[in-house]
Amino acid sequence: MSVTHPAGFVAAGAAVGIKSTGKKDLALVVNQGPTFDSASVFTSNRCKANPVLWSEQAVQDGTVRAVVLNSGGANCYTGPEGFVTTHRVAEEVGTLLGIGAIDVVVCSTGLIGLANDRDVLLAGVNTIHGQLSAEGGNDAAEAIMTTDTVSKQVVVQGPDAAWSIGGMAKGAGMLAPALATMLVVITTDAVVPAADLDAALRAAARVSFDRLDSDGCQSTNDTVTVMASGASGVTPSLDVFTAALTEVCTSLAKQLLADAEGADHEITITTLGAATEDEAVEVGRSVARSNLFKAAVFGKDANWGRVLASVGTTTAAFDPANLDVAINDVWVCRNSGPGESRDLVDLAPRAVTVTIDLKFGDAEATVWTNDLTHAYVHENSAYSS
Amino acid sequence: MSVTHPAGFVAAGAAVGIKSTGKKDLALVVNQGPTFDSASVFTSNRCKANPVLWSEQAVQDGTVRAVVLNSGGANCYTGPEGFVTTHRVAEEVGTLLGIGAIDVVVCSTGLIGLANDRDVLLAGVNTIHGQLSAEGGNDAAEAIMTTDTVSKQVVVQGPDAAWSIGGMAKGAGMLAPALATMLVVITTDAVVPAADLDAALRAAARVSFDRLDSDGCQSTNDTVTVMASGASGVTPSLDVFTAALTEVCTSLAKQLLADAEGADHEITITTLGAATEDEAVEVGRSVARSNLFKAAVFGKDANWGRVLASVGTTTAAFDPANLDVAINDVWVCRNSGPGESRDLVDLAPRAVTVTIDLKFGDAEATVWTNDLTHAYVHENSAYSS
Repeated sequence: MSVTHPAGFVAAGAAVGIKSTGKKDLALVVNQGPTFDSASVFTSNRCKANPVLWSEQAVQDGTVRAVVLNSGGANCYTGPEGFVTTHRVAEEVGTLLGIGAIDVVVCSTGLIGLANDRDVLLAGVNTIHGQLSAEGGNDAAEAIMTTDTVSKQVVVQGPDAAWSIGGMAKGAGMLAPALATMLVVITTDAVVPAADLDAALRAAARVSFDRLDSDGCQSTNDTVTVMASGASGVTPSLDVFTAALTEVCTSLAKQLLADAEGADHEITITTLGAATEDEAVEVGRSVARSNLFKAAVFGKDANWGRVLASVGTTTAAFDPANLDVAINDVWVCRNSGPGESRDLVDLAPRAVTVTIDLKFGDAEATVWTNDLTHAYVHENSAYSS
Repeated sequence: MSVTHPAGFVAAGAAVGIKSTGKKDLALVVNQGPTFDSASVFTSNRCKANPVLWSEQAVQDGTVRAVVLNSGGANCYTGPEGFVTTHRVAEEVGTLLGIGAIDVVVCSTGLIGLANDRDVLLAGVNTIHGQLSAEGGNDAAEAIMTTDTVSKQVVVQGPDAAWSIGGMAKGAGMLAPALATMLVVITTDAVVPAADLDAALRAAARVSFDRLDSDGCQSTNDTVTVMASGASGVTPSLDVFTAALTEVCTSLAKQLLADAEGADHEITITTLGAATEDEAVEVGRSVARSNLFKAAVFGKDANWGRVLASVGTTTAAFDPANLDVAINDVWVCRNSGPGESRDLVDLAPRAVTVTIDLKFGDAEATVWTNDLTHAYVHENSAYSS
């Protein structure tokens, strides 16, 4: 019930025949107001899918009244006809809701390079429009799943439960900086002007979705849209709202990580003692992208040498002879040499922490990733996406 | 017989007890002159192994008279005592050969973070010194193998066979730009002053070793050293010598690629129509580092969408709506949309070509990589390195 928990929102999700499996494949989330403020962030990939090309224009004025999302086809690299399909879907939603198509965000996910069936999509939009309800959040969250094994939802209450934020997300691979095949819809009944929503979303995404680096690959379709209905009549301070929105985004990011394709371990990489936060992120990301280190974690090998080898490829400020590394809080590397025995590290549990102390400054940052497993290779070699 | 093919060189390789397996683990290549010109390139990783820290100093004056290489231990992140071990090995070689330690390059490869047994190494140096011969090239090439399944050697003749270049290499993983756990010794009996050798080596490495990106990981120990004995008495033009040296480096790079850990496919990625060669390399490297694309190749899936998604992460100049991609010469993507059927692509053979046409400029470049396989994950999770 996540995105329909805040007042002023209805949603629906159903199987309309886009997926050949008969699973749910189309979702619609509608803001009924009284306010229609919104903010969005998109993939930074320059090769963008048609829905992103459309939605980037649709969100320009800060008003979004509905988000329509389909799984079963990404509508990416499908040429001008694919863009027409996206546009027609937005128009159909607009007509049914009595709003302008330009206030409709469109999201698609699934295989890229194959055209979606326009007629199936348009008929599906009519079907789910008839199913919109204040209880439709679960169905909507299920309808955007692709290789996800569970739906991802969250609700965070404001002070005194005077307002709330609800969110849903899909994505189980291609997670990378600046987003990934990750579709996220967030709703709130707080009163938040579009400019404030934008500031809050960028602040929240910077320390949540942007710190997730499952496999270094960057999707073509990523979209995060937040809509504020104002239905609670309460206007929170920007700080309080930003904190709650950050909690929502962090929860969804961690749910995405937990369901990443084929992962055996969730790895939390914290870099301490950096000159700047950006450098701490750069160091963490370099380790998150080391196939060698990620394969070692899969093999339950506390291989701190592969951590140092990754850190050494960055431009961060540090003394290469004076680095400390802990794995699961065992300081296996001290001053760039052997520390406590790596045999003390138990890598059987799913959660793994890596702590890197650059011993240079006061900044720190955390990046999340997964291990590199046989199941990852299987899932990404046996199935197209 | 590669490194001992050119006149003026002797070599040896033997099992001296560094590896517990009893396999060959120590090699020595000696330039007997009359000239002792040399050039070297090293890993650009900032966390360098002790042998690299030593050898970077040893090569400064352009004179190298011997290279000693051990497998079975990388002497990396082993602290000040590890550096003393490297220095003592150089001194021992120098004493035995009657030359200065500062003219001895030291290379090590194997597990990082564990100290090498200094006494075993020093005794081993004495052993192989007694085995130096003009027929020792094969033994030396075998003694530097770690997870390599075959030794890598090459000989290229100059015009009229007046001089030659021989080379040996090891490395089967961690191959990445700016070198990788790759140890290479190249010898020539041509007369080539150190400054010319340096120019020739940098030109050759730029289009060979630096274009190899097996798994994006960058080693701590990479070293390439070329030594010129002048024993042929022939001074080739710099252009002719550079071309021959490039042939040597390209052959060794391709041998490394062919033996990369767990690979099922060798992927040659050529980027056409780029504004600059650097941008062509950036585009090729982005695809070479896409785990999703590499897993697709393993699964024999001609997934051009994953190619475009990688290209879109680069800063190269192109129109995202106007890209062409061929896989094994089938143009599966035209103008960023579907082209010929991907079913026409046969990915059963080991060799795979990917051609990306940015349709923007006249520059092009080729980058080589491997697919991402179950065997890669197995080799890098089940064994430490």
